[in-house]
Amino acid sequence: MNAGVSQSSERLVRVPLGDRSYDILIGPGLIARAGREIAARVKGRRAAIITDEHVAPLYLEALTESLASEGISVVSLTLPAGEKTKSFDHLITVCDKILEARIERNDPVIALGGGVIGDLTGFAAGIVRRGVRFVQVPTSLLSQVDSSVGGKTGINSRHGKNLIGVFYQPDLVLADTGVLDTLSEREFRAGYAEVAKYGLIDKSDFFAWLETNWKDVFAGGGSRIEAIAASCQAKSDVVAADERENGQRALLNLGHTFGHALEAATGYDSRRLVHGEGVAIGMVLAHDFSARMNLASPDDARRVERHLKAVGLPTSMADIPGGLPPAEVLMESIAQDKKVKSGKLTFILTHGIGRSFVADDVPASEVLSFLREKQQT
Amino acid sequence: MNAGVSQSSERLVRVPLGDRSYDILIGPGLIARAGREIAARVKGRRAAIITDEHVAPLYLEALTESLASEGISVVSLTLPAGEKTKSFDHLITVCDKILEARIERNDPVIALGGGVIGDLTGFAAGIVRRGVRFVQVPTSLLSQVDSSVGGKTGINSRHGKNLIGVFYQPDLVLADTGVLDTLSEREFRAGYAEVAKYGLIDKSDFFAWLETNWKDVFAGGGSRIEAIAASCQAKSDVVAADERENGQRALLNLGHTFGHALEAATGYDSRRLVHGEGVAIGMVLAHDFSARMNLASPDDARRVERHLKAVGLPTSMADIPGGLPPAEVLMESIAQDKKVKSGKLTFILTHGIGRSFVADDVPASEVLSFLREKQQT
Ligand SMILES: NC(=O)c1ccc[n+]([C@@H]2O[C@H](COP(=O)([O-])OP(=O)(O)OC[C@H]3O[C@@H](n4cnc5c(N)ncnc54)[C@H](O)[C@@H]3O)[C@@H](O)[C@H]2O)c1
Ligand SMILES: NC(=O)c1ccc[n+]([C@@H]2O[C@H](COP(=O)([O-])OP(=O)(O)OC[C@H]3O[C@@H](n4cnc5c(N)ncnc54)[C@H](O)[C@@H]3O)[C@@H](O)[C@H]2O)c1
Ligand SMILES: [Zn+2]
Ligand SMILES: [Zn+2]
Repeated sequence: MNAGVSQSSERLVRVPLGDRSYDILIGPGLIARAGREIAARVKGRRAAIITDEHVAPLYLEALTESLASEGISVVSLTLPAGEKTKSFDHLITVCDKILEARIERNDPVIALGGGVIGDLTGFAAGIVRRGVRFVQVPTSLLSQVDSSVGGKTGINSRHGKNLIGVFYQPDLVLADTGVLDTLSEREFRAGYAEVAKYGLIDKSDFFAWLETNWKDVFAGGGSRIEAIAASCQAKSDVVAADERENGQRALLNLGHTFGHALEAATGYDSRRLVHGEGVAIGMVLAHDFSARMNLASPDDARRVERHLKAVGLPTSMADIPGGLPPAEVLMESIAQDKKVKSGKLTFILTHGIGRSFVADDVPASEVLSFLREKQQT
Repeated sequence: MNAGVSQSSERLVRVPLGDRSYDILIGPGLIARAGREIAARVKGRRAAIITDEHVAPLYLEALTESLASEGISVVSLTLPAGEKTKSFDHLITVCDKILEARIERNDPVIALGGGVIGDLTGFAAGIVRRGVRFVQVPTSLLSQVDSSVGGKTGINSRHGKNLIGVFYQPDLVLADTGVLDTLSEREFRAGYAEVAKYGLIDKSDFFAWLETNWKDVFAGGGSRIEAIAASCQAKSDVVAADERENGQRALLNLGHTFGHALEAATGYDSRRLVHGEGVAIGMVLAHDFSARMNLASPDDARRVERHLKAVGLPTSMADIPGGLPPAEVLMESIAQDKKVKSGKLTFILTHGIGRSFVADDVPASEVLSFLREKQQT
């Protein structure tokens, strides 16, 4: 772990995937330089930028000008912000816009925004003409450390989240760390939950480094770039080993089984719970449940809880405003999310901080009684 | 070319694409045996069959029973027949049906029908859960020799045909040659145009064999299986060499540039022109245009015309009922289909039967005067 050591102001992480390999650039001022970086890697000279109503007024003009200065003409589309935008309706709108803009195979489609815009735009780029060039310009912390890396794209269905999509790797990711200054404190914290996740999965020294340096990460000092680069590197390692999630990539779901159940239970209402908050609570629950199963020490669960609390994240179900349905209902949504094979669930559990693993024989009954207990406290 | 030589009643063509390799089985009675063949290659025991209103009453029950006898439970969806079904609306319906049926990664989604059902269903199978198992049971001649092989899937957009889709290879193709007996004579002929195409691209002896044996192909004798197998083998060779159409795969578009322009000019009205008929006319035009450019002998164009006429296919623009727009309008649609680079078009031209090639500097002005002349005769 070299986080905190190097002091250069820009970092490059290369995702090694054969002829689908690509660079992630991380640092301040990348939107201003986007035209140059894109022109160096993508042949086409017509671009379509897809963004949302919060991000457009802040960064669309700068990105457009940067592209124009390289002779790349731009058509843009601004969508409503929020999870509901990951729908078939908006996918059709995006595909139409891309075709209207006469984007060909070698021209870039650019996602400027958080994970919602990235997932939706990546999906569209993957299916228009069976695939055109795709550039991610993630603007939320969550999208910089997680959703823009790895090639998972998609939309939601009434049957569940992210059920329709493709694996489609970008040609370039430009993570401009400066834009995070306009992100709300709450969204920044939510993204931070995923940063901490990489430490909890298999990098205990990174987690310890975060315990010491998190204030500088939030304040936007050099540690912010370090933390984002370390996260991208961690995700890149997992993706390179298992591009299509047949095995180890599942570790990235640490905290997510509980988290998704909580998101579903709150009706994906972002006023009550956003994804990263669900993950924060879910990670504490995963550590607690592992301790209950005598797999890990309860001290580790307390340490995780302490750190996430310190940064201001919710860490227990009681922290969610508005009350939750009974454990049985949470359990149903867990069973729907996962395939239940004769009463057994696949879960990401842990032997302690940085020692997570895929457990594929977790008794559903144990999870249920655990949730019941937790709801009583 | 061993067409016409072997007399076995079933043929197997393997498409060699690394871990995406698959078998095409060709012969009578395959629907009755589908359950066994699918169970041998796909783990899941839940299937979704997508079909159309013409095919369902003829073959859905037989296929469902065959699957049931292997312990595979079936959910099915019957859609309207025809090109209009390749739309976002129907894609959403298919995705919903697949999710409702609780199809998981290892369960098969089965396309039972012609190219319309195959293209739409393959696209859905490629995007639900970012890809589930996919089996093609093509029932039209065109889909048996062309659309079910090679992994191109997709739908139409108001900006043009097949503009939205993915490359998604099936796990198995079952071409039951017996079902072609219920196909209309006209649809059979249209599919035959694509069979002849493989000869014209680079197999002059196959074309000569067809000139001798076409009646037995139409009548459903051993030559039918031979012709379909030879066509699948030809397409497989091209696809294996160029899965994502970066180069030689373009040869498969012989006759299609003119053909697409004619389809567009007739508003995709199948009463006036179906795809294979457009291709038949387009292939004669491609040979004529090549002769006009002094690339090939006009005798070859006449030989192509003679054979396609003999089987009952249209071979000139005058054969299309209802009249065509002027050459300028056809030209516009050609220019939209292809990228025009400074007045030059990419076209599949030929040095003679079985000697086609990709020409990327065809002057648009020459094509226009050629079309004008042709419309006067
Ligand atoms: N593809 C993957 O691998 C992957 C991984 C994790 C999450 N996801 C997906 O990502 C989505 C969540 O991503 P998210 O948290 O970025 O959500 P988001 O895209 O909704 O962004 C959160 C909010 O922040 C705003 N915003 C973004 N950047 C801003 C900036 N610089 N300044 C001011 N406001 C800004 C957005 O407009 C939005 O209101 C979910 O749909 C989730 O499923 C995907
Ligand atoms: N994916 C590819 O590589 C590829 C290649 C070529 C064509 N295509 C696509 O294929 C489509 C055309 O395919 P098609 O010609 O099979 O069209 P189709 O699917 O519309 O079938 C033609 C007609 O025949 C009927 N039919 C099919 N099988 C029958 C049977 N056994 N008995 C009675 N009726 C039957 C259908 O219901 C339909 O009315 C077009 O959309 C074209 O774009 C795709
Ligand atoms: Zn997450
Ligand atoms: Zn065709």
